[in-house]
Amino acid sequence: MAAVKEMKTVTASSQVHPFDQLSSEEMIMVSQVTRQAKPAMDIIFNTITLKEPNKQEMLSFLGWDTSKPRVSRIEREALVVALERPSMKCYEGIVSLDQEKLTSWVHVPDVQPILTMDEMLEVEQLVLKDEKVIAECRELGITDMSSVFNDPWAIARHVSYPGRGRRLMQALMYMRTCEDDNQYVHPLDFVPIIDLGMMKVIDIEYIKPKNSKFARPTIPMQQHNFLPEFVGEENYRKDVKPIIVQQPQGVSFSVKGNEIDWQKWNMRISMNYREGLVIHNVSYQDGAEKRPLFYRLSLSEMVVPYADRDPIHARKHAFDVGEYGLGLCTNSLALGCDCLGSIYYFDAVFNDHNGQPYTVPNAVCLHEEDHGILFKHTDYRNGRAHTVRGRRLVISHIVTVANYDYGLYYYFYQDGTFEYEVKATGELNTHVLAEDETPEGYGTLVAPQVNAQYHQHIFTMRIDPMIDGFNNTVGQVDVKRVPYPTGHPMNMMGNAFTAQTTMFRDTHEAQAIPSYETSRVWKIFNENNIHPVTKGPVAYKVTSDCQVPLYAQDDSVVGQRAGFAKKTIWVTPYNENQMFAGGFYCNQSSGEDNLESWMKEKKSVSNTDVVLWVTFGMTHLPRVEEAPIMNCEVLTGVRMQPCNFFLRNPAIDVPPTNKKINHSVDAKIAPKEAGCCSTKL
Amino acid sequence: MAAVKEMKTVTASSQVHPFDQLSSEEMIMVSQVTRQAKPAMDIIFNTITLKEPNKQEMLSFLGWDTSKPRVSRIEREALVVALERPSMKCYEGIVSLDQEKLTSWVHVPDVQPILTMDEMLEVEQLVLKDEKVIAECRELGITDMSSVFNDPWAIARHVSYPGRGRRLMQALMYMRTCEDDNQYVHPLDFVPIIDLGMMKVIDIEYIKPKNSKFARPTIPMQQHNFLPEFVGEENYRKDVKPIIVQQPQGVSFSVKGNEIDWQKWNMRISMNYREGLVIHNVSYQDGAEKRPLFYRLSLSEMVVPYADRDPIHARKHAFDVGEYGLGLCTNSLALGCDCLGSIYYFDAVFNDHNGQPYTVPNAVCLHEEDHGILFKHTDYRNGRAHTVRGRRLVISHIVTVANYDYGLYYYFYQDGTFEYEVKATGELNTHVLAEDETPEGYGTLVAPQVNAQYHQHIFTMRIDPMIDGFNNTVGQVDVKRVPYPTGHPMNMMGNAFTAQTTMFRDTHEAQAIPSYETSRVWKIFNENNIHPVTKGPVAYKVTSDCQVPLYAQDDSVVGQRAGFAKKTIWVTPYNENQMFAGGFYCNQSSGEDNLESWMKEKKSVSNTDVVLWVTFGMTHLPRVEEAPIMNCEVLTGVRMQPCNFFLRNPAIDVPPTNKKINHSVDAKIAPKEAGCCSTKL
Repeated sequence: MAAVKEMKTVTASSQVHPFDQLSSEEMIMVSQVTRQAKPAMDIIFNTITLKEPNKQEMLSFLGWDTSKPRVSRIEREALVVALERPSMKCYEGIVSLDQEKLTSWVHVPDVQPILTMDEMLEVEQLVLKDEKVIAECRELGITDMSSVFNDPWAIARHVSYPGRGRRLMQALMYMRTCEDDNQYVHPLDFVPIIDLGMMKVIDIEYIKPKNSKFARPTIPMQQHNFLPEFVGEENYRKDVKPIIVQQPQGVSFSVKGNEIDWQKWNMRISMNYREGLVIHNVSYQDGAEKRPLFYRLSLSEMVVPYADRDPIHARKHAFDVGEYGLGLCTNSLALGCDCLGSIYYFDAVFNDHNGQPYTVPNAVCLHEEDHGILFKHTDYRNGRAHTVRGRRLVISHIVTVANYDYGLYYYFYQDGTFEYEVKATGELNTHVLAEDETPEGYGTLVAPQVNAQYHQHIFTMRIDPMIDGFNNTVGQVDVKRVPYPTGHPMNMMGNAFTAQTTMFRDTHEAQAIPSYETSRVWKIFNENNIHPVTKGPVAYKVTSDCQVPLYAQDDSVVGQRAGFAKKTIWVTPYNENQMFAGGFYCNQSSGEDNLESWMKEKKSVSNTDVVLWVTFGMTHLPRVEEAPIMNCEVLTGVRMQPCNFFLRNPAIDVPPTNKKINHSVDAKIAPKEAGCCSTKL
Repeated sequence: MAAVKEMKTVTASSQVHPFDQLSSEEMIMVSQVTRQAKPAMDIIFNTITLKEPNKQEMLSFLGWDTSKPRVSRIEREALVVALERPSMKCYEGIVSLDQEKLTSWVHVPDVQPILTMDEMLEVEQLVLKDEKVIAECRELGITDMSSVFNDPWAIARHVSYPGRGRRLMQALMYMRTCEDDNQYVHPLDFVPIIDLGMMKVIDIEYIKPKNSKFARPTIPMQQHNFLPEFVGEENYRKDVKPIIVQQPQGVSFSVKGNEIDWQKWNMRISMNYREGLVIHNVSYQDGAEKRPLFYRLSLSEMVVPYADRDPIHARKHAFDVGEYGLGLCTNSLALGCDCLGSIYYFDAVFNDHNGQPYTVPNAVCLHEEDHGILFKHTDYRNGRAHTVRGRRLVISHIVTVANYDYGLYYYFYQDGTFEYEVKATGELNTHVLAEDETPEGYGTLVAPQVNAQYHQHIFTMRIDPMIDGFNNTVGQVDVKRVPYPTGHPMNMMGNAFTAQTTMFRDTHEAQAIPSYETSRVWKIFNENNIHPVTKGPVAYKVTSDCQVPLYAQDDSVVGQRAGFAKKTIWVTPYNENQMFAGGFYCNQSSGEDNLESWMKEKKSVSNTDVVLWVTFGMTHLPRVEEAPIMNCEVLTGVRMQPCNFFLRNPAIDVPPTNKKINHSVDAKIAPKEAGCCSTKL
């Protein structure tokens, strides 16, 4: 393994690709250069990240755009977002890494940049030391403040402190009855408001019972835990025999720096503070031709709006990408726990408030999985069966955003199919009810007095396609009955139906929701490349299994801030300033600059460099079975399949396997103990 | 392994469970007893199968109904469906296996029982020997009839031969350019009609080009193959390294005869000629209590209607359960190909026309799979992560129905979740076009002159629930905005939404389609068992990822015959004669006796013994990439999750695993060859 690690390091330092995130060394340099250029400023380094290279230049650099002389060198730059103390003014800086120089420094008025892990941890501590908070806890019967915990949340929009003039958070309060106790079943009924400029609690609000007949709720004290010391290892199931996944001949992928090759796919990955994992420059080898598919894939934003009308709960609509950063919330993964088999890990580097880098080891997991039968056909005449097993490449990371945990999975299949999946797990957000109070149609009691409110998880993936080139058009396919009744000469047996394709030509057309009635799907076409058999433009089909509308009113706070959640499909012309569906400055935003606002002006998205935004999600009515921990709810958010893109099934060259190759065996079954769980005969 | 096989045999013969399908010995006895009772009859044994025991008696026998004295013995009976030669009259017989006696023999007028594999094979041969067919082939340039093949299909309803008076099939004609060539890219343009009573071709019909400007199509001769001898093993991908799944300590399930125990689940399986795999008497161990969940689960019917208005194509709407039988079409599975790891197989026994049994070895695959993370939560404060991997029990079989192959998977998860999944693979049904003819909005050209028509695959699962007992009620949950605008005192921030549950009280209410607008789900409630925390009835939630409407007109032939496809959800009171959504005598039916017709009379389905029918499917617009073989299209048709059924997550006692237990390793990556597929820097 020593050799492998060494190789990794050498690659990283000697051969930096323009898509590679900043190294630790680069981050240090960026903060040093910035401080030297602004010696009088007391700077909080909110964000230090790669300023991604200009797309036009990159298309040439990568060889996809051959219309101009090839760009052979890309200038490497870093983006700095900084807060100045004590004014808390926000600045955006650009540092040239090649020149080691701050080339731009701009004050950005009236914004609040992303919240950081430093702030989460600082705020929790300051809340616990606040006299008013201590007094409230005492009133609830808590004398030991070390048993009190809080999850600091973004404020969304606060009635008393509107706008973005002050940097605010709200703290959701809990207690623990002992070390590592599950705090989410012991919620407290008040919410401190914190000013991060002043670094103090400026207000305390109360979640009052909706019906005045209820008194202030007591704290539910019943334990409800999942950690081993609470479940008791002696209570674990005894009959879970190990499943071992091995690749004695090694894995089928190769890695060089951040570049991955596997089964005709080629791509690069990076990890940034915000979207976490990003996939760049995805192509598929089709015979002698390397065909471009996607310039960039990422989860651009998500929102988790809650249903309860209480003004405090109504503020709960977390933007986990734009407010907290999926990168900043990324777990360090454990071999054999998070991923099984032969695993390759990538580390990630982020910055703290001092501009110092820190590494999250094993931030990204890369491995391949058997994925069952790829294809099979039997000739029933002679029983000749041909079965080929398929597999997928999995690139994943896991984030923890306070109570919830999300597994985020990019899947690549041998036949050119791509899928993006979210696994939602972790802890339900809860609040306390008075003893006889009910959730009143806004939630589920998951334990006495513990209300897990209804909510939604809505995600928007940003897909920057280059289906056989960067000029693409998105269209919609609707299936319909023919307009002739049964018995009509055009529909004698009444069975006829057909499919209709609508090309989205501008941003006003390019907004769509699902239709069960028409089995609606979408396609990304390249109208410049006509398929020789179908005579239509080559395409990739886009589908999603998980479609929900946004239930908040269109003009609600969350409706304004999370406009992206209102439609499944949005198409915009490429614009390097439009990377995040909730806006770059999402925190405390009011929807001034986000995907929905970008769509207002009518712009062409026809046969040009377009970006496709796909929204998916779930409406989550919690179940009792989701406490004390929620089993993964799996959302296959986006699936993209070649659809009249190749000349045939591109995976017929996948070799079949058999028991000699994969060592499958007949299971040996021990005779069952008499009387054990049997239906007595 | 000898010991294991021996144990299996001993169990089967010495201890027959009432749900066990007929053994070979029993089948022989049934045909002997029948022949002896009807010595003058020339009998074709169409079907010999278990007559499933009376449900009321079984509920007592199984211990679920304790209101009456326990039934300790169940009479074992067989159902015989026979055709008499030469009249082709249909008879239904009951044979008592205990008494070795034919106890009932009834002529059933005006029906056509299921088509058998014997008939498929006989019809193909007689078509090829028919003089008119030979003449047609000659006209198309074929002189060697050994290159001609045909797939005999059910007739659906034929304009010239309506009703069920004659037993008919239609033959879809193809040729092969060499042995094992893929015939589906060489379709011929005529369709012989066969009378199975006369065993002769009675008519030949022509698929004419829609536009008269086209002449009779020639046969497309281009090869389009996936078998190894055509692809060439030298062309296989070289970089697919083996993935090995092993369970050195054995599997976690136990099997006794047809009874399976795994991870708190207990159930029985059986295989019959029609539905193939059936799961019986499913329960989950909840602490000291064994809680009943499902009395019986099966795929009751499916239909594949095609879109083309041409009267011949319009007849194509295969009912693969009711016309051909999933059991009869079942593959014998191969270790390491169809299933990977440590596999336990069950055989299946069916009868031929002579009443002789034949065994399909390895008809059902039983194994367990790692299923990724079951749950995970990290406390972001200290980084303490607890990750538990989950797994599922997979019980599956694979059927081949002429061109298509379906993998049918029953999944049981450790937390009480059940899923039913269909993987559609195999060959697209195709027909020939004239050289410049287009599919005219009814299909996709997957190769020159080869039209793969649009179609749908629609499946209806029969779920006979016993959620904490056999009296259940099905209800629907719809999520809605509250009726107050943003700023209203009841919806200040505009975020409020709620969920509304509607209980289906009768068969007229109990018909539903999906609703994106309301995130609609369904639940099976037990109104007699109130959950102590939520104070509502315990329930299982029912969802489906794959919902499509039936595009055929309501009064079309397929609309009448496949009424089940018109709704997602249907609930009926339990009736032992209502097992199959397309009717018991589905072949050549007109919809006289099927799920839709059973719903017409208003009957109570409120807190009684109900059956839930869930329809799901896909609208299939073929892609070029699905030729010469279609990669598995995966349909998660039904998911059932405990929803306020248990007191907490029932899987918190699943032990965590780690790399010591599961031998996960860091992947060793060989340094990439310079210049190989890299984006040159």
